Amino acid sequence: MTTRPPQPAVPEFSYRDGALQAEGLPLELIAERVGTPFFLYSASAMEAAYRRFTKALEGLRAEVFFAMKANSNQAVIQTFAALGAGADVVSEGELRRALAAGIPGEKIVFAGVGKTAREMTLGLEAGILQFNVESWPELERLDAVARSLGLVAPVAIRVNPNVDAKTHTKIATGRRADKFGIDLDHARSFYAEAMKLEGIRLEGLAVHIGSQLTEVTPFREAFTRLAAFYRELQGAGVPLTRLDLGGGLGVGYRGEQPDLEAYAAIVREATEGLEAELAFEPGRYLVAAAGLLVTRVVYVKEERGRRFLIVDGAMNDLIRPTLYEAYHEILSVKEPQADWVYGEADLVGPVCESGDYFARDRLLPPAEAGDLLALSHAGAYGAVMSSTYNSRPLVPEVMVKEGEMAVVRGRQDYATMIAQDSLPDWLSKPDQ
Amino acid sequence: MTTRPPQPAVPEFSYRDGALQAEGLPLELIAERVGTPFFLYSASAMEAAYRRFTKALEGLRAEVFFAMKANSNQAVIQTFAALGAGADVVSEGELRRALAAGIPGEKIVFAGVGKTAREMTLGLEAGILQFNVESWPELERLDAVARSLGLVAPVAIRVNPNVDAKTHTKIATGRRADKFGIDLDHARSFYAEAMKLEGIRLEGLAVHIGSQLTEVTPFREAFTRLAAFYRELQGAGVPLTRLDLGGGLGVGYRGEQPDLEAYAAIVREATEGLEAELAFEPGRYLVAAAGLLVTRVVYVKEERGRRFLIVDGAMNDLIRPTLYEAYHEILSVKEPQADWVYGEADLVGPVCESGDYFARDRLLPPAEAGDLLALSHAGAYGAVMSSTYNSRPLVPEVMVKEGEMAVVRGRQDYATMIAQDSLPDWLSKPDQ
Repeated sequence: MTTRPPQPAVPEFSYRDGALQAEGLPLELIAERVGTPFFLYSASAMEAAYRRFTKALEGLRAEVFFAMKANSNQAVIQTFAALGAGADVVSEGELRRALAAGIPGEKIVFAGVGKTAREMTLGLEAGILQFNVESWPELERLDAVARSLGLVAPVAIRVNPNVDAKTHTKIATGRRADKFGIDLDHARSFYAEAMKLEGIRLEGLAVHIGSQLTEVTPFREAFTRLAAFYRELQGAGVPLTRLDLGGGLGVGYRGEQPDLEAYAAIVREATEGLEAELAFEPGRYLVAAAGLLVTRVVYVKEERGRRFLIVDGAMNDLIRPTLYEAYHEILSVKEPQADWVYGEADLVGPVCESGDYFARDRLLPPAEAGDLLALSHAGAYGAVMSSTYNSRPLVPEVMVKEGEMAVVRGRQDYATMIAQDSLPDWLSKPDQ
Repeated sequence: MTTRPPQPAVPEFSYRDGALQAEGLPLELIAERVGTPFFLYSASAMEAAYRRFTKALEGLRAEVFFAMKANSNQAVIQTFAALGAGADVVSEGELRRALAAGIPGEKIVFAGVGKTAREMTLGLEAGILQFNVESWPELERLDAVARSLGLVAPVAIRVNPNVDAKTHTKIATGRRADKFGIDLDHARSFYAEAMKLEGIRLEGLAVHIGSQLTEVTPFREAFTRLAAFYRELQGAGVPLTRLDLGGGLGVGYRGEQPDLEAYAAIVREATEGLEAELAFEPGRYLVAAAGLLVTRVVYVKEERGRRFLIVDGAMNDLIRPTLYEAYHEILSVKEPQADWVYGEADLVGPVCESGDYFARDRLLPPAEAGDLLALSHAGAYGAVMSSTYNSRPLVPEVMVKEGEMAVVRGRQDYATMIAQDSLPDWLSKPDQ
């Protein structure tokens, strides 16, 4: 291998005494305690990311809402809540999780294209800060639900600025063909009509152009358009107080650093002089690099000139590689040595389909059966997207902080998994 | 619309009195009882598919092992077990499910590239019929595990015939670059070496070239090669008694019928005169068409010249459209009328990413908010691949048979979902 082996993405994960450790705890030790595979989160790395984010926005009237869709474990939510974050939720489940984690309604924004009347009721009853509304039928239903409860719903309309976010097509959300938001051209008349609804209080204007943006240029384009439109709406008498700039700041899956400073500079420039609170909904940025998926090599298979490292983690645990063709660095848990020879190999799981892989044709370390490997940047869109495909139980989530560790979700047990099923009367055996 | 609207794939789902029903039960009635979305299975359609499959193989010494990876609900497994089927399992979880459903060890085959020592132990202790072995390191471990238990492991070696199965790349498994099996050229010496292992009894030769094959030609190529190799091995003194032809027979997602007769003819031709039991591992063929995903329209959104039907089902419930670009017919639960105008639309869910869709640019019926729609062929690789992404609870699975219905897995409740998480000591509040 001519290049340097992959390095951990945050200082909380680093090599010490020849092995990868997390906040002072060797990964091998954690693996012995909880078994493999497991997700490993560094609380300090999450806190550091949150502090970097808020520091970059210092001096702005900014509120941060953690986008729980990236990682909704109670311990993760509370880690951010303790630092003052609110929550960006997209479903009844996420709303309940945020409230369970002690985030008050006034620090919750509710986004998503398909809110049901039941979800609206729950949000109104919890006194949430803002509903991000995505269509006229949704606004009409929210109006009706609010009036039926004798309440007024605080609303931001999410506009779609038709900006190509240059990200993976499945997570771009601000293009004309996407299901999200109201077209900017159409939003003018939308706000005018919305002003007439008694159950609706128009407080905000919102945008979210996509996820995992690694270039900041699309943000400039979108935020500049939005700020101009915000001024126009204020001028037209819409009593707006909040500009919601969404999330989307990417992380460096290949080791590059997201340009937080450039992002913050674009925000300052685009919103200068605006009479508005600013809302931000970072998710991936706060948690991706602070998480690993730790997995053990089961077999090294050499066949027809290819080398396969077969590990005990699989697509059901972390679906990003096969779903988004996502790249995750593979870290050796043994510290790489100068004389190691890296060979091209596939890193695959035991699930019975060819789509079950973590890396293909990658230069991988000389691992043997029993060795631990860690997939970098697994803190976002990892555990939340896990399934039990192939009847594989949900794996543990472990959080570490300054030498302590806690299992923040245990491994699902087989009896619980099977007990979810029940039999029809016509199949119950006569002798039972 | 110039073509006929999509029709249900099996007679057990059909229109009656203006609405879609399943074995005599209107879908609207089931939806009122269990809420939406939900998976709906017809037991009779599963039984009919099983009987068609075994009838096509009549006269052959054939054993059928249901590939549980397609649908591992206890009620589904028992439906096939009652007809005499065994089980094809790929993990500890599936093995436990099969045993829990009352399938005896001698009717279970264990496949998969990453079996752990623990899984081997469980399989040996359950007295399973056959381990399908995929690599030399796996065979060595199985030998060691078996000897340590004082047992002998019955084995089939899975060979990779290098046949392009002409299916989706993520589910093709018989090509040179895939992780599965032993290369045919290499299998000769593999068997010779394996004969020397005391913990291994070589009983079979196995192949599985992929899933959802809609052309039968690749089967002819693979089975012919396999049968010739089987004869060669027998000639060389390997005491083989079983040829395992795997699964892979596709289903007609677009209304076409899989050519079961042609498949059976290929089997007969390829195995004529062979001294072997034949093993088959159908999964999708038995369950796909017997299942629907029933979902309700939440909003119809018209924006920038596009029409979106936003439903309450999403990619976390059925991931096949976004993961495999899979096509599922969309059935109106109201019976389509001659004067209905079908318009191009996207059928999307409420999950916050553009990849959350079931159909794009599809001619869809004139649905309104509140209407029910049913996605066809959702009985295979549906519920087993579901996740709780966006904190959406696992949806119910309902089975119907001749006018009766049973919830065979209930909807996950929010309290249970959140209770999976626990907090580290350092986050527990001092006043608690």
